[in-house]
Amino acid sequence: MKVAALLLCSVLPCSAAELNLMPWPSQLTQQDGFLALDHTPHFDVVGEDERIDHALTRFVHDLSSRTGAPFDRHFPGQPDGPQFIIHCAGHGLRVQALEEDESYHLIVSQTGIELTAANPMGIMHGLQTVLQLVQPGPRGWVIPNVRIDDTPRFAWRGLMIDVSRHFIPLENIERNIDGMAAVKLNVLHVHLSDDEGFRVESKRCPKLTQLASDGLFYTQDQVRELLAYARDRGVRVVPEFDVPGHAVSWLVAYPQLASGPAPQGLVRSEHDQVRPPLDPTQEATYKLIDTAFGEMEKLFPDQYFHIGGDEVDGKYWDKDERIQAWMRAHQIKDNHALQTYFTKRVREIVHKHGKDMEGWDEILDGDLPKDSLIQSWRGADSLANAARMGYKTVLSAGYYLDLMYPASQHYAVDPTAGESASLSAEQKSNIIGGEAAQWSEYVTPENLDNRLWPRLGAVAERLWSPQSVTDVDSMYRRLAVLSRNLEWLGLEHRISSQRMLGRIAGDDMPPELLNTLAMAVEPVKEYDREKTQVYDGEAPLNHLVDAISPESDQARHINALAQLAAHDAPARAELRTYFIKWRDNDAPLEPYLATSMLREPLVPLSKSLSTLGVLGLAALDAIETAKPVTQEERKEQLARVEENAAPHAEMFLVIAPAVRTLVQAEFGAK
Amino acid sequence: MKVAALLLCSVLPCSAAELNLMPWPSQLTQQDGFLALDHTPHFDVVGEDERIDHALTRFVHDLSSRTGAPFDRHFPGQPDGPQFIIHCAGHGLRVQALEEDESYHLIVSQTGIELTAANPMGIMHGLQTVLQLVQPGPRGWVIPNVRIDDTPRFAWRGLMIDVSRHFIPLENIERNIDGMAAVKLNVLHVHLSDDEGFRVESKRCPKLTQLASDGLFYTQDQVRELLAYARDRGVRVVPEFDVPGHAVSWLVAYPQLASGPAPQGLVRSEHDQVRPPLDPTQEATYKLIDTAFGEMEKLFPDQYFHIGGDEVDGKYWDKDERIQAWMRAHQIKDNHALQTYFTKRVREIVHKHGKDMEGWDEILDGDLPKDSLIQSWRGADSLANAARMGYKTVLSAGYYLDLMYPASQHYAVDPTAGESASLSAEQKSNIIGGEAAQWSEYVTPENLDNRLWPRLGAVAERLWSPQSVTDVDSMYRRLAVLSRNLEWLGLEHRISSQRMLGRIAGDDMPPELLNTLAMAVEPVKEYDREKTQVYDGEAPLNHLVDAISPESDQARHINALAQLAAHDAPARAELRTYFIKWRDNDAPLEPYLATSMLREPLVPLSKSLSTLGVLGLAALDAIETAKPVTQEERKEQLARVEENAAPHAEMFLVIAPAVRTLVQAEFGAK
Repeated sequence: MKVAALLLCSVLPCSAAELNLMPWPSQLTQQDGFLALDHTPHFDVVGEDERIDHALTRFVHDLSSRTGAPFDRHFPGQPDGPQFIIHCAGHGLRVQALEEDESYHLIVSQTGIELTAANPMGIMHGLQTVLQLVQPGPRGWVIPNVRIDDTPRFAWRGLMIDVSRHFIPLENIERNIDGMAAVKLNVLHVHLSDDEGFRVESKRCPKLTQLASDGLFYTQDQVRELLAYARDRGVRVVPEFDVPGHAVSWLVAYPQLASGPAPQGLVRSEHDQVRPPLDPTQEATYKLIDTAFGEMEKLFPDQYFHIGGDEVDGKYWDKDERIQAWMRAHQIKDNHALQTYFTKRVREIVHKHGKDMEGWDEILDGDLPKDSLIQSWRGADSLANAARMGYKTVLSAGYYLDLMYPASQHYAVDPTAGESASLSAEQKSNIIGGEAAQWSEYVTPENLDNRLWPRLGAVAERLWSPQSVTDVDSMYRRLAVLSRNLEWLGLEHRISSQRMLGRIAGDDMPPELLNTLAMAVEPVKEYDREKTQVYDGEAPLNHLVDAISPESDQARHINALAQLAAHDAPARAELRTYFIKWRDNDAPLEPYLATSMLREPLVPLSKSLSTLGVLGLAALDAIETAKPVTQEERKEQLARVEENAAPHAEMFLVIAPAVRTLVQAEFGAK
Repeated sequence: MKVAALLLCSVLPCSAAELNLMPWPSQLTQQDGFLALDHTPHFDVVGEDERIDHALTRFVHDLSSRTGAPFDRHFPGQPDGPQFIIHCAGHGLRVQALEEDESYHLIVSQTGIELTAANPMGIMHGLQTVLQLVQPGPRGWVIPNVRIDDTPRFAWRGLMIDVSRHFIPLENIERNIDGMAAVKLNVLHVHLSDDEGFRVESKRCPKLTQLASDGLFYTQDQVRELLAYARDRGVRVVPEFDVPGHAVSWLVAYPQLASGPAPQGLVRSEHDQVRPPLDPTQEATYKLIDTAFGEMEKLFPDQYFHIGGDEVDGKYWDKDERIQAWMRAHQIKDNHALQTYFTKRVREIVHKHGKDMEGWDEILDGDLPKDSLIQSWRGADSLANAARMGYKTVLSAGYYLDLMYPASQHYAVDPTAGESASLSAEQKSNIIGGEAAQWSEYVTPENLDNRLWPRLGAVAERLWSPQSVTDVDSMYRRLAVLSRNLEWLGLEHRISSQRMLGRIAGDDMPPELLNTLAMAVEPVKEYDREKTQVYDGEAPLNHLVDAISPESDQARHINALAQLAAHDAPARAELRTYFIKWRDNDAPLEPYLATSMLREPLVPLSKSLSTLGVLGLAALDAIETAKPVTQEERKEQLARVEENAAPHAEMFLVIAPAVRTLVQAEFGAK
């Protein structure tokens, strides 16, 4: 922790040198002593707001869940707990907005708690901090004495969920909003339409409701429930309706608006290749968008309305004679100019209904009005470009959780670093935040939580905490605590993984054998899964790759141990235990693999894990006996490591680097 | 499996010699071959009933959860799965009743499924059996070919939950109804009033709503929701309002009806000792009961209405001059006769409103009309007495899950064995079933599931399956599968235990150290907890005793290993691993125990576990080296085992018998 003046506590019960806060606050001072949380705090609230009342109800409920003590009950005759003074200076806006002050000031002393903020959002953030501070002491629950002055680094701290490719029911979204609030994220961006479905009921365009999905969509009442739920937790909801590409669902309802031949039906898999964009040259297109967006802009109150605009496939425009003629007639020189023409028309519609337009970075063009917001997904340069051109912009490149990267990789992505470092201060101020993204080709309601958490906590910290908060080890320690605490909110990232592993192990085999393999693998990264398993919305996602966490904590630990191994005997001893376990795992596991289609694809991985165990043991032996190894032998061993690190069943053995490190290690063990 | 003609399957994918059915059906024949469940079954239903429609919707949903395959979706153009013919001969009664036929006939062949029943309940039971049969095969999900003719042994297969001492919210009750339906239980008995609170809204006696609880009760709308939920799942709901004892909540609302001095308020802990019964000598008592029972009998449609009647504390009658005078005037000779007078008056009220009366066995008296139903909790003799006297009767003695006994102990309790074995066939027919009971002095919504499951499955099997189904090893194997599958229904018996252990381990210690201890202990049995921790409804139930399962599977395994140890080297090797782990657990765990009030009480248990590990290792060494040990030495070792088996923190080291067995073992290892 570099930014915080963190005093090591000198008295019990503090056994951790570091508080388990995530995101880490901008300023924190810890003092000696603890506040005893003997009974339900006595709340003293200045500044009424319905959201504060709701937040306090949740606070007491969450405090009860977390501690297992009935703080949510006040029994007759029971004394009050410590005083908890809440002072909120203002009501906040009717529709939560970007420019609102989310900072808070928190003082916990031996006698009570004081929480001050300009806005109910600051109060909510402060309450989350208090919850994270609660810990068991020798005589009861306590809160360490602290003074925290906390304010977010960025105003836009978001998560995008794609609910089009696999529909995600409301309850799953809602529990993830609870998770977002726990780490002080404040924007839920819902990708509501794509080639696979239009996921909101439309009353003004009933064909969108009847034809543009497979019956799975949110009713408008559900949307209103979602909006109220999110607002109550300090989270804005930004809806995205993707046009003119990714719009097959619109065209199933309105085939006459296709650029070229209309699609046969909703896209159900990567095999469905007819995916024309909306025709930007027909007035009827703008009429439909006006009607649909008018309705949706009324339904979703946020100032921003996301129109997508990504990945428009120009070949449909190239091939359509009529569109080509229209472009010539209107002196539109290429497809980018045609999309800009479309975007400007749509921006007028969005604006007419009272909102500002947001779009993916493909919409970027100097011609657009400056109130357009650019979401950069293709790289840091598009973010820098947008900022330089005077557009407000939000970074998503580097925060794609569906690419299965470790938390540390997302944590290292800083919106104002890299390409953006050379911007002027004014230009930099156009970078208003970032957004994690979860595309759902390979995500179902069952494993959504597992795909988001706990890694999303690292992104949340990057967007809230000072730029100087970059200690990866500290991040991982606190992320592990966050992960456990999220379970009290009902998030299923851990339990769903366990249940899915149990399904694969079934009734007929010892689950430990599968678990040993499961801890050693991770899903393939980036877009590699597409190469071996074409996206198919109807395919069950119930295999090991779907069950495991995107990041194996155990593998990270093992790979770190290997770095120490050359000079650290206890590290070698621990590695030896793992290697023996791997070596001996395939023989008993193998007979069970053939009997279930869920296990059969694991045959090569299981064999490779055992081989890596054998190679690891040989390398440890060589280190410990200082046995001379020829270049040839080492080369051959490294080749075998690489061979066994190859992906199968959309996974790879993420512990291979540990073995590689040992094989490469200098023989100088002490 | 003694009763079933179970053919061992000769082809893949059957790797289990036994199907994982629980309760085991009355007749089962397994044939070679499997039905491939490639797509959603094509249902062909004869005999319409709303409950069948709902059951099929749930079936397809549960099938999808369990397999992770989208059987709940029928994608356009997708072929049908296997044919599933459902033939239900009748509609069943408007209010589910004891005498309805719950049997079903199920045939699964390579081409499809046929399920036949007289009644929607039989269809529901059959669907649960089909779900339990589904397993993964080498090429997809399959169902083994079987023919099952199944009928329950007893018509009353119940679970009682006490929602008065700790209120249990509706959602927790509902998910346990799903669990009940999964094991074919058919009666939920809700203990709705006691000294701690009257837990149903009363419109006719608003004081009961305003004063007789701490605000935690079911509204009448919630009750109706509960009733519909249960009916939909083949479960009757029998309400209990306990009178004249256990009625302090009534007396807080109507103090003038107390026998002697009125209580000061609701009972909140065992320290509140003023608990008078209702005064059976006042007419106003019967007037109130008539009003309240009239309303509740209308609300709850079941034929049976439970009036409690247990544990009436006669000292209040003895001490009240007015009551004594009244007894003399009415020639009532003792307190039992006074209670019988009361019971008969109440039975008239119950009957007037159209119901039959049920009560705990204290109400038993030859004077009662024969339509009274006796629930026996005090022992098998009261069951036999009731049956002999011509009363229908239900056994609960032996099925008290709150006493923390292992599943095997409940499994061994047979309603028609023991005292009842000598009854005539006609008398025996009065024994209509049994009921598990969960009193809630030490149960909260957080650990209710853990206190019920999976042990309740063993009781369910006892009450459904033929009397000859008694193989304990088979029961435990199938119970483990049931336990996992119940998670797909949302039951939290495993996850809540994990979460609570995580809470105790906190953020500052390696959880494995706590888990090693947790696997070796069980809660103290019977009523021993009361001796060291007086019941207090306000006390947090968040300690290790509250988190662990009432029965440790690992301890059972270890104790069984010890039985083999004298003559089985692999068993000794496995035991040695456990003993070493225990021996080495206290040193690293001990420093963490003092820093949290949740862990501090574990100090002596942790020390004892290590000592037992040392003693176990010494005994193993002695066996393996055939070292001569004197009687004195052995006696001393046994004394040390006993010393370390003593309970602490409401738990005891349930693995002590393994060590004792080894110390006692003859030294003849091979």
